[in-house]
Amino acid sequence: MVERQTVNDDLRKERTTCTFNTEELTNFIDGGAKNTDKRRTIAKFFLSDPRFKDEVPVTYLSHQEHYEQAIRKSCIFYKKIKEWEEISNTHIFEIYDVLWTSGVDTAIIKQNVPFNVHSIMFLPSLIGQGTPEQQEEWVERAFNNSILGTYAQTELGHGTFIRGLETTCTYDPENEEFILNSPTLTSYKWWPGGLGHSCNYAIVLAQLYTQGIHRGIHPFIVQLRDSETWMPMPGIKIGEIGSKMGMNSVNNGYLAFNNVRLPRMQMLMKNAKVHKDGTYEKSPNEKLTYGTMILVRVLIVKSLVTSFLMQSATIAVRYSAIRRQSELKSGEREPQILDYQTQQYKLFPVIASSLVYVCAAKWLWDKYSAVTSQLKKVDLDQLPELHAMACCLKAVGTTDASISVTSCRLACGGHGYMNCSNFPNIYSLITATETYEGENTVLLLQTARFLIKSYETIQMGNNVSTLEMMSYLEKYNSLKQSPWTTTLDCMTNAFFQVAGSKIDDCYFTIKRLIDSGMAQEDAWNQTSIKLTQASEAHCRAFVISTYVKTLKTNQFSPELMDVLIQLGELICAQWILCRLGDFLQHSNLKPINVHSIQCLLEDCLERIRPNAVGLVDSFDIPDEILDSALGAYDGNVYERLLAEANKSPLNKEPVNRSFELYIKPFLKSNM
Amino acid sequence: MVERQTVNDDLRKERTTCTFNTEELTNFIDGGAKNTDKRRTIAKFFLSDPRFKDEVPVTYLSHQEHYEQAIRKSCIFYKKIKEWEEISNTHIFEIYDVLWTSGVDTAIIKQNVPFNVHSIMFLPSLIGQGTPEQQEEWVERAFNNSILGTYAQTELGHGTFIRGLETTCTYDPENEEFILNSPTLTSYKWWPGGLGHSCNYAIVLAQLYTQGIHRGIHPFIVQLRDSETWMPMPGIKIGEIGSKMGMNSVNNGYLAFNNVRLPRMQMLMKNAKVHKDGTYEKSPNEKLTYGTMILVRVLIVKSLVTSFLMQSATIAVRYSAIRRQSELKSGEREPQILDYQTQQYKLFPVIASSLVYVCAAKWLWDKYSAVTSQLKKVDLDQLPELHAMACCLKAVGTTDASISVTSCRLACGGHGYMNCSNFPNIYSLITATETYEGENTVLLLQTARFLIKSYETIQMGNNVSTLEMMSYLEKYNSLKQSPWTTTLDCMTNAFFQVAGSKIDDCYFTIKRLIDSGMAQEDAWNQTSIKLTQASEAHCRAFVISTYVKTLKTNQFSPELMDVLIQLGELICAQWILCRLGDFLQHSNLKPINVHSIQCLLEDCLERIRPNAVGLVDSFDIPDEILDSALGAYDGNVYERLLAEANKSPLNKEPVNRSFELYIKPFLKSNM
Repeated sequence: MVERQTVNDDLRKERTTCTFNTEELTNFIDGGAKNTDKRRTIAKFFLSDPRFKDEVPVTYLSHQEHYEQAIRKSCIFYKKIKEWEEISNTHIFEIYDVLWTSGVDTAIIKQNVPFNVHSIMFLPSLIGQGTPEQQEEWVERAFNNSILGTYAQTELGHGTFIRGLETTCTYDPENEEFILNSPTLTSYKWWPGGLGHSCNYAIVLAQLYTQGIHRGIHPFIVQLRDSETWMPMPGIKIGEIGSKMGMNSVNNGYLAFNNVRLPRMQMLMKNAKVHKDGTYEKSPNEKLTYGTMILVRVLIVKSLVTSFLMQSATIAVRYSAIRRQSELKSGEREPQILDYQTQQYKLFPVIASSLVYVCAAKWLWDKYSAVTSQLKKVDLDQLPELHAMACCLKAVGTTDASISVTSCRLACGGHGYMNCSNFPNIYSLITATETYEGENTVLLLQTARFLIKSYETIQMGNNVSTLEMMSYLEKYNSLKQSPWTTTLDCMTNAFFQVAGSKIDDCYFTIKRLIDSGMAQEDAWNQTSIKLTQASEAHCRAFVISTYVKTLKTNQFSPELMDVLIQLGELICAQWILCRLGDFLQHSNLKPINVHSIQCLLEDCLERIRPNAVGLVDSFDIPDEILDSALGAYDGNVYERLLAEANKSPLNKEPVNRSFELYIKPFLKSNM
Repeated sequence: MVERQTVNDDLRKERTTCTFNTEELTNFIDGGAKNTDKRRTIAKFFLSDPRFKDEVPVTYLSHQEHYEQAIRKSCIFYKKIKEWEEISNTHIFEIYDVLWTSGVDTAIIKQNVPFNVHSIMFLPSLIGQGTPEQQEEWVERAFNNSILGTYAQTELGHGTFIRGLETTCTYDPENEEFILNSPTLTSYKWWPGGLGHSCNYAIVLAQLYTQGIHRGIHPFIVQLRDSETWMPMPGIKIGEIGSKMGMNSVNNGYLAFNNVRLPRMQMLMKNAKVHKDGTYEKSPNEKLTYGTMILVRVLIVKSLVTSFLMQSATIAVRYSAIRRQSELKSGEREPQILDYQTQQYKLFPVIASSLVYVCAAKWLWDKYSAVTSQLKKVDLDQLPELHAMACCLKAVGTTDASISVTSCRLACGGHGYMNCSNFPNIYSLITATETYEGENTVLLLQTARFLIKSYETIQMGNNVSTLEMMSYLEKYNSLKQSPWTTTLDCMTNAFFQVAGSKIDDCYFTIKRLIDSGMAQEDAWNQTSIKLTQASEAHCRAFVISTYVKTLKTNQFSPELMDVLIQLGELICAQWILCRLGDFLQHSNLKPINVHSIQCLLEDCLERIRPNAVGLVDSFDIPDEILDSALGAYDGNVYERLLAEANKSPLNKEPVNRSFELYIKPFLKSNM
């Protein structure tokens, strides 16, 4: 254990130079002082529980020990959630929300909670897709955790393309039962969280056949394991899919069916129905199942992208304030590495990214809440735009976050490679989001489809004024004549010009290809690199403009406002310089202006420098969540590194048994 | 075990479309057919040994089990190297070279060999820095592995800046001994491979004091553990530094000294000397210790960058030929994902990168061999250029490789996240090289120093014709007038123009800042973002031009030449488009030409498509080295994924004990 020590001198000094009130920024991030209080109280309630402390960090355990420990903690964790529900009289979804967004869940179970899919997908799907009778039968039991469920959609050979799923479910009117089968190896369910050994129910997506006719994909509730013995039910083959880059406590599983029979009422029938005699009744609206899918993407942006960006920035900035290395001037003390321009360039954009994504996530969450009011009524008109924005924000946000986490890790040199920095775990959690819940390239192409459609609407002479985020397509071209200035407004307009021009280019490229006789689908595929880039450009224009709008519409103290503007200018400058070719080609930026952006970038780094530690302090992440020898609030980096090393079981004895077993005979044999 | 099966149909079909002889390319990569044979024979000798097979993959083991298994295998591995030395009459360094470059070592011990530092640094340092008497005393024992050593330079608080090391070594003329001490926590040695529990000797770098005067850093040979009991020697505190993102079998260690006494002859005295009475005799040339440092960087480029690029490309391309997903055209069979343009864009540049780095590495190795002929005679005139090229190639090469590995992993979707894809392990090995043996940003700045100095030479009116890679600085400007064509020669020239212009910009920026009164060091720091970018541009110009030169100076069949040109065009197009702003600003590329590069890129992807599998087959990486369920030669991806999953110890019993212990009481308590 690290003894309670005073704060590192360098870090203390940094905190005195901060020019703004860190609590003001904390409150803004949380969405108000009340939310800050709520978050702190909940975090304390969970993080102070001694049952969650690891004597030996999980990275030293075997896969099996790691899993067993995660189950032990998850049971305690879920019971505490119930406790808190009662103590605080808060809705359970709201508690989950705070736990996920603040990172409390992964602070307790580092490689993620095996029961998460139960809360985030199984339960919402029962509510969203079950009839009132089905809800009565299942929802209460799921809420009370007296059954544990998962959501089994993806198959070994099928991820992105849901229509390609192979699991079959055939209705047998004689017995009023469904019969589930996995006809091929590629039809094995593969990936669902908790499926391996940690739940006894699943919502299974399968191809429905009734009256000899194929009816497409439908959801079924299936019991997987006996509640008393936990043995797999008859006809069910089940296990975990094996070890992964991270998330090893999630217990992702596989599942195959051999003539598994289900009562008719175990098809979730809120939308489509199968009647006793096998008559099939279509869903009134296919889009009604959209809701849950979008929700998960929204949560990824809101909870994971922002939280891991802030954690990484905090760890790397604090460490860089403490770490001294090399000499700038001969004979002088080694400088803090935070004083190197190259180091600032790696880290300060991550601080800025954290905040621009916080603002984008707020917009997305509000939009989601408005369009789907409590999962009940869905505003179908606005659904496509919400879907398109959730897709590109999930894709660009998770990619940016993964790159930023890596950049922060590398900025800490070799020490960032140690597990006790927590970067390896953070990276494994964030990079997983690049492929799950919609592979990022696929998502960008989904957004692109919406963008091209909107652009077509305009080309056809109609307007898109009902679409909040699309109206720029009607006017971006007129902005190209204005002179360049390094103001936030001018730079924001440039992002819109780039996005608009790229969409225009894609639209006409596809059109040209089709006009030349190419099939529409081939034309789309041949343009798809450009289409993903157009989606990304659209997303960045949205993110930047949302941040700038936030600065204009919120009340900030002048001190904080200064800093927020600096961060906005920094991220604009960095994003423009990284895609300079686009801006030179497609916006009012001229080659002669490039120098001014480079100067703005360097100038922002210098101005942000004295507030760097203050900014990450404002992210207000407790040490238990950072879980990093490099990033703790007190900055006693080296003491912690040694203390962490000494937790290794290998260090518990001076000589490991491999000496007598292997090394000694080896050394002797070579004499 | 996966049963021997026929090759996947899609993969077999791909192999029939290949337009060139894969063996020709394999031989080129190996540096001749004789080398291919040698590599295959050595690989077979090692990989066929049943003692290296893992019943349970290491990712399921505890940290300690993993370590013990690595030691067991390492002892066998090193004995087999000795065996092979005798069988084949090959020099041991040549054997190591083949093992590392082909990836055999990490095929056997996945997270790297704990004894590597013994061979790659301890032994060469003894040879390079010991007197003939010292060599007689130590080298033979080290060669025979009857002592095992490491190289202890880096400290907890000191990595990059060697002069800042704090370990002291004070000469005591009375006893003719040195006294080693670790005066602070930050002076603890930290990171040396094998140091934890796997060696009994170290070369320790420490600040030498004789006659009360500080003499700077010198190397000492120190016994760490008793050879019979393996207990730490008196005054020595030692252990491992704890778990890491990867390389967990390397057993990186820490080490502290408390008045450890050494006989005088345990300072390595080939260069500087301390006489009996404490008189200090300076080294005739400080640069003589450069050699080993450069060697390791050269080996990183030659062995790791190329090998991990090729492994990743092989896995992802084969998987993409097998994986079918979504529908391009309604009603048609799901296409191979390799047919999606976006997928080709992720993977084919990695194939091209592999080959351009193979060529760059060949140049670097030849240069290294020429400049340091067998570590004995060092050509001091050419040392700075060699050093500068090794620095930037290590930095840019390892960064590119890390990004490419990630890109390949993500291109395999969720399945790439499974450990059995081998991407997580490959990534952990390659990303480690971004910070070890010279942090990449620091290395780029070292190259920049050389570039600025060379440019200054030219500005002073002198020429740099003695420097092989610098002469372009004298003429890049004149190229800016030539018209743009998408030929390799024109594009290569554009890379030189960008590099030259960026160096010019840095040179004059620094000059301007100094002229305005800024201290030289501050001016350097204020320009350092641009300086790293100039180094990178220089490196890319070198890599591209070396590849193009290789195509011109080697004999290839017309079929292979076609493909190599396509790959060259692809990588040029991709690198230009990713840095388009630079080329629009600094080269003869005009906005009107951008479209032609995008077309070239898309065209290359299409032309390479039929040869994609053939190209990665040419990399000729045995399944044992790929160690990937996704990338095996026979393409039976799904069978292997399931077989790998079933190796998980959690799948050995239907119900894990955590059910009775935790889940059952948890479910019941909520009723």
